[in-house]
Amino acid sequence: MPHKLIKKVAIVGGTHGNELTGVYLIKKFQKFPHLIERENFNTLTLLANPKAVEVCRRYIDTDLNRCFQPEDLQNPKLINYEQMRAKQIAQYLHQEKADFIIDLHSSTAHMGVTIILNNDNCFLLSLAGYLSTVNPLVKILQYSQKQKPSYLRSLCELGLAIEVGSVPQGVLNGYFFLQTELVLSQILDYIQNNNQGIKQPIYNSFFIYKQVETIDYPRDEQGELKAMVAPQLKDYEPLYPNSPMFLGFDGQEITYQGNSTCYPVFVAEAAYLEKQIAMCLTIQQQVTLSDNFGE
Amino acid sequence: MPHKLIKKVAIVGGTHGNELTGVYLIKKFQKFPHLIERENFNTLTLLANPKAVEVCRRYIDTDLNRCFQPEDLQNPKLINYEQMRAKQIAQYLHQEKADFIIDLHSSTAHMGVTIILNNDNCFLLSLAGYLSTVNPLVKILQYSQKQKPSYLRSLCELGLAIEVGSVPQGVLNGYFFLQTELVLSQILDYIQNNNQGIKQPIYNSFFIYKQVETIDYPRDEQGELKAMVAPQLKDYEPLYPNSPMFLGFDGQEITYQGNSTCYPVFVAEAAYLEKQIAMCLTIQQQVTLSDNFGE
Repeated sequence: MPHKLIKKVAIVGGTHGNELTGVYLIKKFQKFPHLIERENFNTLTLLANPKAVEVCRRYIDTDLNRCFQPEDLQNPKLINYEQMRAKQIAQYLHQEKADFIIDLHSSTAHMGVTIILNNDNCFLLSLAGYLSTVNPLVKILQYSQKQKPSYLRSLCELGLAIEVGSVPQGVLNGYFFLQTELVLSQILDYIQNNNQGIKQPIYNSFFIYKQVETIDYPRDEQGELKAMVAPQLKDYEPLYPNSPMFLGFDGQEITYQGNSTCYPVFVAEAAYLEKQIAMCLTIQQQVTLSDNFGE
Repeated sequence: MPHKLIKKVAIVGGTHGNELTGVYLIKKFQKFPHLIERENFNTLTLLANPKAVEVCRRYIDTDLNRCFQPEDLQNPKLINYEQMRAKQIAQYLHQEKADFIIDLHSSTAHMGVTIILNNDNCFLLSLAGYLSTVNPLVKILQYSQKQKPSYLRSLCELGLAIEVGSVPQGVLNGYFFLQTELVLSQILDYIQNNNQGIKQPIYNSFFIYKQVETIDYPRDEQGELKAMVAPQLKDYEPLYPNSPMFLGFDGQEITYQGNSTCYPVFVAEAAYLEKQIAMCLTIQQQVTLSDNFGE
């Protein structure tokens, strides 16, 4: 079992201003701080994009959660609202010596309760195993490590996002609010017990979903959509070769041309339409933790 | 059976720019017009708010679907984008002699396939009965007639909206796209048969939901939300006196204080947060059509 001492956990919400689960959880924790206090580490809360929260939009000038590449944080030419805010946040979390970041998100896709990891740090994988053990709703999604991390949570080696859904943008959804609060509390408990060296129950093996590819919508020469995601395609359900992936406005099905089964996530996510992403494809992998894993 | 001759049906989408079901159905019908052609009436299509569609927002300056009060359409001082656009649309549909309007909407609430009527015109009620008969998913919602109609569909005595959901804003949802297309086609078939005087199968009685009240979120002195909609409360499911209506951020339940059972709709609709509406309350009513109803 890994046994790294965590001293300060940053809980961040409102990185996207229209994801109200995180926004209202942060407001709740600021009003009732005992909910996130634990014995052997400190916690701070941060509403990351207050201007976007005010107007209930994802962002003002650009997606804040793509502004955290180290070279961008050093680049004095990047001065729009989110670029400036990213620099402030990076400086603040550095000053505060936050050594664990939890960023609260929601998705319009049916992500359930997903924990997103950017790397395969063994402390994070062990935590992921714990959450998979104690919370039957949790799914673990690992982003590709090929792309440079530009996320708020990538300010720390130990960073993760909680991504719940389907929650429409601008909706305060009670069910996923409570689910986020529950899994967040399980993470804080894990960190506390880990700090004390208490061994915690973890299944020997669990599944993670590894992102391998993003897929755009079929488009015509003008860039207009020619199809929508096939209605039968669902987040985290297997997509087999030659099974329907898109349904054209002309009524024709477009099938998945890959050679092996994959598991789509972020299916038809509203915020990814402008990023030219209709879905992300993942592969399912079994992770086995050894007893002295990560030490 | 009512037997009013309909000559021109206007099918409108994109009245709200981020409700993509209507936007893409209109684009599809413009490309494949035979889908909405019928023998004994004409059809026109209209993308109502193209600027809002372009930026994928509900509106640019103000909610277009609240700009159609007759006195506002006559008021030369109302000149923001949607107010001007409303005048254009009213003039266009008048010139075109549209005598039936179908406005395509989606909601973040679980509205299923809802047909919204503004009045109790007997042709519309008869159509509602037909749709309730042939389409098990259809629910009929009638807005209060106390408020002045300001909707695009209220440009005609015979106007209705198709409101499907839950569909997050900015999401092109295949399932509800197909459901909207189906019920729209059933409406066009009904009009065609009715124009020919063909008697159509209608249950003698069916249920409608009549809007009686709107409810705001509980708020503090600064207007900040103090609670979210109780997770167990669902659209179109009975809400009994003293059952949970909101869940406070302090963990306290707030119960429904009405004297009789009601049926909430538009529960936690994203677009209604700024309108200070957490849900609309309706009562369920049985409508019985007589054989010569509406003639």
